[in-house]
Amino acid sequence: MNKYIFAERMKNFQASDIAAILKVTADPEIISFAGGLPAPELFPIDEMKEVVAYVLEKHGTKALQYSTTEGHVPLREKIASRMNRKYQTRLESDNIMITTGSQQSLDLLAKMFIDDGDVILCESPTYLGALSAFNGYNPRYVEVETDADGMVPEALEEALKREKRAKAVYVIPDFQNPTGKTWTFERRRAFMEVINRYNIVVFEDNPYGELRFKGVVPPSLKSFDTKGQVVLLGTFSKIFCPGMRIAWLCAEGEIYEKFSYLKQAADLHSPTLSQYEIDTYMEMYDLDAHVGRIIDVYKERCGIMIEAMRAELPPSVSYTVPEGGLFTWVVLPENLSARDVLMTCIEKKVAFVPGGAFFPNGGHENTLRLNYSNMPPERIVQGIKLLGNAIKEHLR
Amino acid sequence: MNKYIFAERMKNFQASDIAAILKVTADPEIISFAGGLPAPELFPIDEMKEVVAYVLEKHGTKALQYSTTEGHVPLREKIASRMNRKYQTRLESDNIMITTGSQQSLDLLAKMFIDDGDVILCESPTYLGALSAFNGYNPRYVEVETDADGMVPEALEEALKREKRAKAVYVIPDFQNPTGKTWTFERRRAFMEVINRYNIVVFEDNPYGELRFKGVVPPSLKSFDTKGQVVLLGTFSKIFCPGMRIAWLCAEGEIYEKFSYLKQAADLHSPTLSQYEIDTYMEMYDLDAHVGRIIDVYKERCGIMIEAMRAELPPSVSYTVPEGGLFTWVVLPENLSARDVLMTCIEKKVAFVPGGAFFPNGGHENTLRLNYSNMPPERIVQGIKLLGNAIKEHLR
Repeated sequence: MNKYIFAERMKNFQASDIAAILKVTADPEIISFAGGLPAPELFPIDEMKEVVAYVLEKHGTKALQYSTTEGHVPLREKIASRMNRKYQTRLESDNIMITTGSQQSLDLLAKMFIDDGDVILCESPTYLGALSAFNGYNPRYVEVETDADGMVPEALEEALKREKRAKAVYVIPDFQNPTGKTWTFERRRAFMEVINRYNIVVFEDNPYGELRFKGVVPPSLKSFDTKGQVVLLGTFSKIFCPGMRIAWLCAEGEIYEKFSYLKQAADLHSPTLSQYEIDTYMEMYDLDAHVGRIIDVYKERCGIMIEAMRAELPPSVSYTVPEGGLFTWVVLPENLSARDVLMTCIEKKVAFVPGGAFFPNGGHENTLRLNYSNMPPERIVQGIKLLGNAIKEHLR
Repeated sequence: MNKYIFAERMKNFQASDIAAILKVTADPEIISFAGGLPAPELFPIDEMKEVVAYVLEKHGTKALQYSTTEGHVPLREKIASRMNRKYQTRLESDNIMITTGSQQSLDLLAKMFIDDGDVILCESPTYLGALSAFNGYNPRYVEVETDADGMVPEALEEALKREKRAKAVYVIPDFQNPTGKTWTFERRRAFMEVINRYNIVVFEDNPYGELRFKGVVPPSLKSFDTKGQVVLLGTFSKIFCPGMRIAWLCAEGEIYEKFSYLKQAADLHSPTLSQYEIDTYMEMYDLDAHVGRIIDVYKERCGIMIEAMRAELPPSVSYTVPEGGLFTWVVLPENLSARDVLMTCIEKKVAFVPGGAFFPNGGHENTLRLNYSNMPPERIVQGIKLLGNAIKEHLR
């Protein structure tokens, strides 16, 4: 007999069968295309040894103590100028708040805006982890048509007109998770023109934008924002080390202020020591050069995966060819279930995430997401070969 | 014009005038009795240098990578056996979840149990930071009579009978924040006898229990728990370093499982590097010996503060004499406002937290909380002298 009663919202949190299946990916024998893990061999461990020794020597008592909710000011200054340089924003340190991973920003932004039954508009498909953050606040999801160029502005406008309870739009315009697609410049401009006409806030999630293999980084949605409607999220997880759990949010005015209340209530502040470490790393070393090394490796791995898919997947299977980021998106023939294929793949010691979970309102069970950042080239080739075999078995 | 609409719950988060006043405590000239900050001169900085170098050398790629939501298994094992030894629990590593500070546990436990208008029962007064975590879920607070021995069981039973929407009881039985009081053994037993008869969960918050100056550590409420109704919270913030943001939750079964969903949605997991560091510290060094050094310093400072209060405060002012922890609680004559006294003290460069904020339903403006862990002896003596002067000025 239970001696307690859970809140209603807990109905939105259920054990996932996929999570259970993917627990097997902890087995080092498994070739995993499932997670979004950076390549650990690129972590700057030797540099970190030097950085940490310096931080403890120079700032030990401060770096181990409680600190302010908003975060370490020198780090916030560096982030603001970096964002302005890369994404054409006009941010100051007072617009930057340090968060415990971008996951925390997603959770607290939903807490700030979403009452039971409010609508979140999103790309279709969209990031699974964002949905699990938002689910705690009982939103309804409206998937907005998204093509190869990004969210379709006419579809967005139509949804905003129709959905009186629309509160927020959640988008990942750069190397989207799960599809790997990037919005064009023209689509960004058109999106923001629509947004400007409505009482709505935009959560622009950009964990992968810097990991661009070719071409130029397009301006952020935030760079078109004249009314403080866009909250832009960035993170060190993909360009430095995810285990430090340091990310940031860019916002103005009342949103920034209210976010700090929520963050204080959620975890007081993000780890002080991690903040000092990243700040010191950025002073002692060239983060851009480090990102350059990551890009070289991921670009190679992406190329190898695409080449292997060309060779191994049947012609009825399509996939995106990303220009950056961590993922490619595979569409199987309509009658094939990616969950079934996954079961076969697990037997062959290969794993991926079935795509259905990325559609908040279900369907699209014939899709899947592949990560190429975490496996070395020879395992990518081997894994895609096994995936191809599994798909062919199911097509028979 | 605002271009967005906040969620209803944001009404519960307002800028606090006290927070604004206490921002002045960042001024190093201020003698601050306001925060709950550990003494930074006790942080084991030299040991940490060795620990971090070892962690990066031995476990670098794992310590900087994403990790499991529940936390680093060796650390969870150490915590379980430590809790069993100190607090007479019967926990295993599977009952321990690593959290980003205990603040995160408070936030996510409220998220797990509280629907709009549900009742949280608490001591009177209780911890301010817990209230701000709970406020995001719109609870109603029922303050239960609490005397020098702890929560009064008859008052608890009466409240549980009356309040049909009671969902949770939040208590700090060891060196309570803000009063510094510790529940007696008999009260713990009687409390749990009442709890056993109701469908209710208990959040037992214990950040200070190890910081005992004399006598024996009483058994935790959790040690009397036979039905999984008690969730026990512990933290490294007061016995090691708060800047690492590593704490833990002890729970069983469905509560543990649901907490892991919520934690994953909130920040994926707590910092991997911090977890490896604390685990390695506990292997390389004797944490109990470190806690012993903290106790020696805080015991001295507490004694100095109490002695100074005896000498400097007028006889109409009463205060608790703690046997451990970080705080003493001061009750002024009824017609005096601690907020007014604070304004005078700030002019004299002394700060504390007015006690009214610790009563969820208001009142008790003639109370205040003093912290003695963060200031050296001579500043404690000087600060209490200035506080005494301020009170005497207001009594005139």
